[in-house]
Amino acid sequence: MKLDAIIARSRKFVQPYRVTNGKHFSLTRFAPDDIGPFKKHGKDEAAALLDEGVEALSALQELLYASDTWSVLLVFQAMDAAGKDSAIKHVMSGVNPQGCQVFSFKAPSSEELDHDFLWRCAKRLPERGRIGIFNRSYYEELLVVRVHKELLQRQHLPQRLVTEHIWKQRFQDVAGFERHLARSGVLVLKFFLNVSKEEQKKRFLERLDRPEKNWKFSDADLRERARWSSYMKAYQEAISHTAARHAPWFVVPADHKWFTRLIVAAAIIDAMGSLGLAYPTLGRSQTQMLAKAKRDLQNG
Amino acid sequence: MKLDAIIARSRKFVQPYRVTNGKHFSLTRFAPDDIGPFKKHGKDEAAALLDEGVEALSALQELLYASDTWSVLLVFQAMDAAGKDSAIKHVMSGVNPQGCQVFSFKAPSSEELDHDFLWRCAKRLPERGRIGIFNRSYYEELLVVRVHKELLQRQHLPQRLVTEHIWKQRFQDVAGFERHLARSGVLVLKFFLNVSKEEQKKRFLERLDRPEKNWKFSDADLRERARWSSYMKAYQEAISHTAARHAPWFVVPADHKWFTRLIVAAAIIDAMGSLGLAYPTLGRSQTQMLAKAKRDLQNG
Repeated sequence: MKLDAIIARSRKFVQPYRVTNGKHFSLTRFAPDDIGPFKKHGKDEAAALLDEGVEALSALQELLYASDTWSVLLVFQAMDAAGKDSAIKHVMSGVNPQGCQVFSFKAPSSEELDHDFLWRCAKRLPERGRIGIFNRSYYEELLVVRVHKELLQRQHLPQRLVTEHIWKQRFQDVAGFERHLARSGVLVLKFFLNVSKEEQKKRFLERLDRPEKNWKFSDADLRERARWSSYMKAYQEAISHTAARHAPWFVVPADHKWFTRLIVAAAIIDAMGSLGLAYPTLGRSQTQMLAKAKRDLQNG
Repeated sequence: MKLDAIIARSRKFVQPYRVTNGKHFSLTRFAPDDIGPFKKHGKDEAAALLDEGVEALSALQELLYASDTWSVLLVFQAMDAAGKDSAIKHVMSGVNPQGCQVFSFKAPSSEELDHDFLWRCAKRLPERGRIGIFNRSYYEELLVVRVHKELLQRQHLPQRLVTEHIWKQRFQDVAGFERHLARSGVLVLKFFLNVSKEEQKKRFLERLDRPEKNWKFSDADLRERARWSSYMKAYQEAISHTAARHAPWFVVPADHKWFTRLIVAAAIIDAMGSLGLAYPTLGRSQTQMLAKAKRDLQNG
């Protein structure tokens, strides 16, 4: 299938899940078990489409690298067991690792806490021509830190700056940061993998039942699960305050991993397909230089 | 002299040169040869005051380090030979190098050009408890890049993003960045060392006449000098769009180095003196722990 056709198809797939304006956004209107146009057992059909998508992504990434003007930042946020890691793995599997880097942000180090909350992510922004993936990100500051307000205390902020306005200020700072990135040639795409509380329970039980999955479970996961509704409220607010045309959110149904992957791939393909990427064309003097190099090599 | 008295005196010295709102700002109203309340040959008197200022700065920096919540970012911008290096050297001479770091930003590397224009500076922001000095900074993007528009081409920006709005957008991005820093506990102070074109000529001739100063001269300096009025226009706009209460500019008269240093020191002392810095106080359990440690050591 041709790249243009895959881009067009991707655009159609992803449209219902893209949020570019938070004004009337309501997370509860997005069903975690949505599978779009597919039948309940559409897994195989979707897998075939994903294969094509992965190939298209590989081609787009080569164009990105060659044209060397845009970079792509993919931000992944989700509750535990929503499938972030596996989505990243499956969607990006065809991409040249030289043009793609993944950073997983865990609890901040003391050096990181000694800087503003964007610092540790800003340092790791992708270079022009590359795709950077943030597995969690500065959005944690609006999510886990908001749900566990005691974490704010560990940030050593001057007391006079910790006011009731701090969350509004952080929304504004994140939005300003992403606007600056977009203006600088960074394509910013943000994914919330929207898993249901029931599906999470199923996946947690699987981790407990299957020895080879045990390592993925921590009892901290249950503590976070107990705060589900606080987290959903935090996601609702974070998304509605930071969704923008230049930095859209994608609320991706995550109860069916095969559908999650397809939508994530479609979002990236659609957006990269809109950048007008092209291989650099050579001027006359460069073409002449290449011709001369060829002659010199043949005669040498 | 007591710290509080030096802070109060500094506040008075610096007041005429502080710009916290760009609305009615006019650079031409600031005289480069201003020496404030001093007589023409006030150099010795000023030097004595500077000595006290340097001591006060050292004390304030210790407090900053111990309290470990605020950091201080000092941004220096100026035309060549305005005295940036010597101001930094003389004003910060009493400060413990462990709590102070200077970065000089020259022409950006290709890795730096492959990121947004704030990136290389953001990476080098000071940690809490420390003073970071930027000898030139992201403001170069609003100054030299604005005067030499061909530099913008080297930034590999996607063509569709380079519009007539780019300077307005950069003002906004810089202002947003500094607001975020201020909210995060960074005291941001920006210095424009305002030297006159005549005084620059005198200093350039000195560099050419005195062999031990020859190394400081480059013929590029003359090319920039020829664009004096473009630079002044760029400074006028950059300052008026980014002056804020939380990130003030100081337009420091720079025709007399002794006065420049005094005002730079006064600005830092005044601002740090307003942070309410204090040594951490210990809770009861910590005091008991210290008493126990003392007993154990004495009995050991």
